[in-house]
Amino acid sequence: MAGDREDALVVGVDFGTLSGRAVVVRVRDGAELGTAVHEFRHGVLDRALPDGTALPPDWALQVPRDYVDVLRTAVPAAVKDAGVDPAAVIGIGTDFTACTMIPTTEDGTPLCELPEFAGNPHAYVKLWKHHAAQPQADRINRLAAARKETWLSRYGGLISSEWEFAKGLQLLEEAPDVYAAMAHWVEAADWIVWQLTGTYVRNACTAGYKGIRQDRAYPSEEYLRELNPEFGGFVRDKLDHPIGNLGDRAGSLSKLAAYWTGLPEGIAVAVGNVDAHVTAPAARAVEPGRLVAIMGTSTCHVMNGAELREVPGMCGVVDGGIVPGLWGYEAGQSGVGDIFGWFVDNQVPRAYHEAAAAQGKNLHEYLTELAARQKPGEHGLIALDWHSGNRSVLVDHELSGVVLGQTLATRPEDIYRALMEATAFGTRVIVEAFVEAGVPVTELVVAGGLLRNELLMQIYADVTNLPLSTIGSAQGPALGSAMHAAVAAGAYDDIRAAADAMGSVDAAVYRPVPEHAAVYEQLYMEYADLHDHFGRGGNDVMHRLRALRRAAVADR
Amino acid sequence: MAGDREDALVVGVDFGTLSGRAVVVRVRDGAELGTAVHEFRHGVLDRALPDGTALPPDWALQVPRDYVDVLRTAVPAAVKDAGVDPAAVIGIGTDFTACTMIPTTEDGTPLCELPEFAGNPHAYVKLWKHHAAQPQADRINRLAAARKETWLSRYGGLISSEWEFAKGLQLLEEAPDVYAAMAHWVEAADWIVWQLTGTYVRNACTAGYKGIRQDRAYPSEEYLRELNPEFGGFVRDKLDHPIGNLGDRAGSLSKLAAYWTGLPEGIAVAVGNVDAHVTAPAARAVEPGRLVAIMGTSTCHVMNGAELREVPGMCGVVDGGIVPGLWGYEAGQSGVGDIFGWFVDNQVPRAYHEAAAAQGKNLHEYLTELAARQKPGEHGLIALDWHSGNRSVLVDHELSGVVLGQTLATRPEDIYRALMEATAFGTRVIVEAFVEAGVPVTELVVAGGLLRNELLMQIYADVTNLPLSTIGSAQGPALGSAMHAAVAAGAYDDIRAAADAMGSVDAAVYRPVPEHAAVYEQLYMEYADLHDHFGRGGNDVMHRLRALRRAAVADR
Repeated sequence: MAGDREDALVVGVDFGTLSGRAVVVRVRDGAELGTAVHEFRHGVLDRALPDGTALPPDWALQVPRDYVDVLRTAVPAAVKDAGVDPAAVIGIGTDFTACTMIPTTEDGTPLCELPEFAGNPHAYVKLWKHHAAQPQADRINRLAAARKETWLSRYGGLISSEWEFAKGLQLLEEAPDVYAAMAHWVEAADWIVWQLTGTYVRNACTAGYKGIRQDRAYPSEEYLRELNPEFGGFVRDKLDHPIGNLGDRAGSLSKLAAYWTGLPEGIAVAVGNVDAHVTAPAARAVEPGRLVAIMGTSTCHVMNGAELREVPGMCGVVDGGIVPGLWGYEAGQSGVGDIFGWFVDNQVPRAYHEAAAAQGKNLHEYLTELAARQKPGEHGLIALDWHSGNRSVLVDHELSGVVLGQTLATRPEDIYRALMEATAFGTRVIVEAFVEAGVPVTELVVAGGLLRNELLMQIYADVTNLPLSTIGSAQGPALGSAMHAAVAAGAYDDIRAAADAMGSVDAAVYRPVPEHAAVYEQLYMEYADLHDHFGRGGNDVMHRLRALRRAAVADR
Repeated sequence: MAGDREDALVVGVDFGTLSGRAVVVRVRDGAELGTAVHEFRHGVLDRALPDGTALPPDWALQVPRDYVDVLRTAVPAAVKDAGVDPAAVIGIGTDFTACTMIPTTEDGTPLCELPEFAGNPHAYVKLWKHHAAQPQADRINRLAAARKETWLSRYGGLISSEWEFAKGLQLLEEAPDVYAAMAHWVEAADWIVWQLTGTYVRNACTAGYKGIRQDRAYPSEEYLRELNPEFGGFVRDKLDHPIGNLGDRAGSLSKLAAYWTGLPEGIAVAVGNVDAHVTAPAARAVEPGRLVAIMGTSTCHVMNGAELREVPGMCGVVDGGIVPGLWGYEAGQSGVGDIFGWFVDNQVPRAYHEAAAAQGKNLHEYLTELAARQKPGEHGLIALDWHSGNRSVLVDHELSGVVLGQTLATRPEDIYRALMEATAFGTRVIVEAFVEAGVPVTELVVAGGLLRNELLMQIYADVTNLPLSTIGSAQGPALGSAMHAAVAAGAYDDIRAAADAMGSVDAAVYRPVPEHAAVYEQLYMEYADLHDHFGRGGNDVMHRLRALRRAAVADR
């Protein structure tokens, strides 16, 4: 620990989809001393603006002022909760959802705060799950493939409609006046740091994963002009900006931000970061081969690799995307916990509700307990976990779920377990894609709410045949942000050293059971067979069913 | 009507799996004047004999005396319910489950009624759903295929473990003493007629469908000896017996049976028949091309054809198997209503129970109402209805169910409707197998409990693109038996004439809606594709899942 007071503290702030959470952490050992949450006042705007202006389908916006409110309320509340002297805080770090984009003026004022744009949806924050730029994304991908743009393979072959370019092109084409007024197209991850420091620094993580920054360059002006003649200057005029590496000091806490947060003016503010990526060091998973799965409603996978490899269907690979000096790989599963939630909401009979209530359990606990009595293969089922499509490695949101093997003896816990297993098989597909591309995976490290389900964890260990570790903190992203603050403040030489001292992981608490792994080996082959049959063109029935569904609904 | 009193009556008795039902019917117009049901005292013996002797898995036995009790109680009760003079009854007809077999002495006494065999399971009735003779059936099929026995194709290529030969071979091999003591291996359909008349007449229907009687001959002694040297005399010694055609007079009501039933001694007793087959004339479906679907927990399809054709995967084709003079075809779906029942029991959430109860509906009614609001294709799902395997045309009991296309927006009524549609697609596969083999199908005639579900009926009409008629009687089999009694008594020249006068059908009450049929045409192609992929060797995953399941259970 690079010389500081014994009781030095840092603050980490994790900005999620609906709220922001601040945590006060001791620099010396990562102890979490206090925490507070602040809900965004406007939540997600997906039907109308605050003034009532209606929004089309697939839109998802936010109000930037809500983010500042987290600084003003959650940070002082966390300090109060910790019962510490704010003067002991030496740095603050933040992480954000991504890709979440804000159009701003030259000085960082969100355009939606200008009276002339207050009623224009395009002037607001486009949240990560704003999906209305799909037509733009499709054109971006078609043109990139046609021109054989070298950066495309860094994203598994597909640029998402959620990312900077698709959303930016939608902005240009649907609201040229807003586009013209925009001086910067800013990741919320960087905008919040700008609010803390008064300085705009673009972080290497989102610039790489969401901004198509590869080998220190962006897509060419020529390519952009071919997309739309007016889009040629997008990088030069709106996007490009000096890059900050993760763990670097973006600047110092401004007088105004010190006033908001109650923290000392001038302390270190870390470069912005992303919620999933910042979790890796919080779980001490900074070395190559440790695949971190942040498991909640969906799963995000991040892992460091020593070398650049192109992995088909991954979300992206970015130099220094997780920690400086290594290649950061990202993949994901679009549906995990939400599939279990859907099942419990829609397919569990009354008798189970009553039995669970009589035992004082929720349905997830009750079904898990019943499912845990089975041996692998006993239910006779196999499922595909594509209820929200497939994000990796097929990258196809028109895919859908399957349950195969039902008999009249099939019970709800059988299907529940089969769905659990399906998500584990989905993780294994990603693991195998990495391994086959030459990126070794040696350990699974799980963070996120689902790590509390011991059966699920054991199934993941058995299915992947990997030791499975779990993060020690219940607030992984906020802890990770606090660790980056400690590095930015100079308390540690780098994020690896901070991870060693402040991160926490319960190492290999689940190990594959050989007899289980042997059965799952067979079941995985069945999963892989169905995966390829329905996902790689053997039978495109899912796409055709979607089309029929759309036609039926349109015809109502 | 061939000269009889205006108020002449007949009695039909339908022997089901758990009870027998008698109906008193007016000969002139088929009016059902009274009915009564008697439950079998011993029901189905599937765990132990009445004396406590335990039974192995897959066994299903009955006690013959229970059948006689139906004659003694339900028949007089039905006459009483009708409020008629029993002297007006001119005939009685019966139908039975099949293949249900009784080993008897020379005079028809069931061997289980002999003190020396009372504790021997093999001396009891082997009910249709006794499935313990599968090893024998497998050998029967292998040897028949190897020897290219010509009769095999009359059964779609497979002899069932439920039928006379497999059960008889099991009897020989597992209880040679019982086999040796057996003078006749008698269909329950014929045994009950024997009780009524004192004469044993073997009916053409079960002899053909279940007894491998084709072109007036049975499998050869040489073939039987190759199955088992001791089995060579099976046909000659145990099975062969003079055949009675359907609607023929088997004999006259004996003094004893008149005493049991309260009916006049000497009245006509019709040749025995089978529940499904006797329903066809009750629905006036005696002409070629009218496919009768008796829809309950499972579906049995029977249809007359003018010519002999070999239909792959059908249950059987028998000369005069439904009405004399035509080829009777039989097919079936192993799971229909039981799939809907399983779904309602296992996959409908509490909120639906409460909403249905608040509206005073059962869950089937409630789900049907919700499902009826959708257009074809709207739920985006496709299902395979193989939860009980597939009886026609794949004849594979190791197949299992599939639901494909789920998203997080999929609701219970979506899956319920998809399962309904899957059974309709299953019927269409059978229709197409007939048509492709040169047996035209021009109309669907539905009998059985499921005809009350109007949505289901409309889906069947739309999916098959055929007009759909429904039987007029709620007691189709008993009415059909009564009609055969009227023919046996000489009141009508033949069963066609009786069907005209006494049968009832609501003709073409459901007609295909062209827009629905067009969408279902596409969905049926998807079903057919999955059907062949999983059912004809494209992917044998269902068989492998079964094997894994058995291994897991065995290993407990």
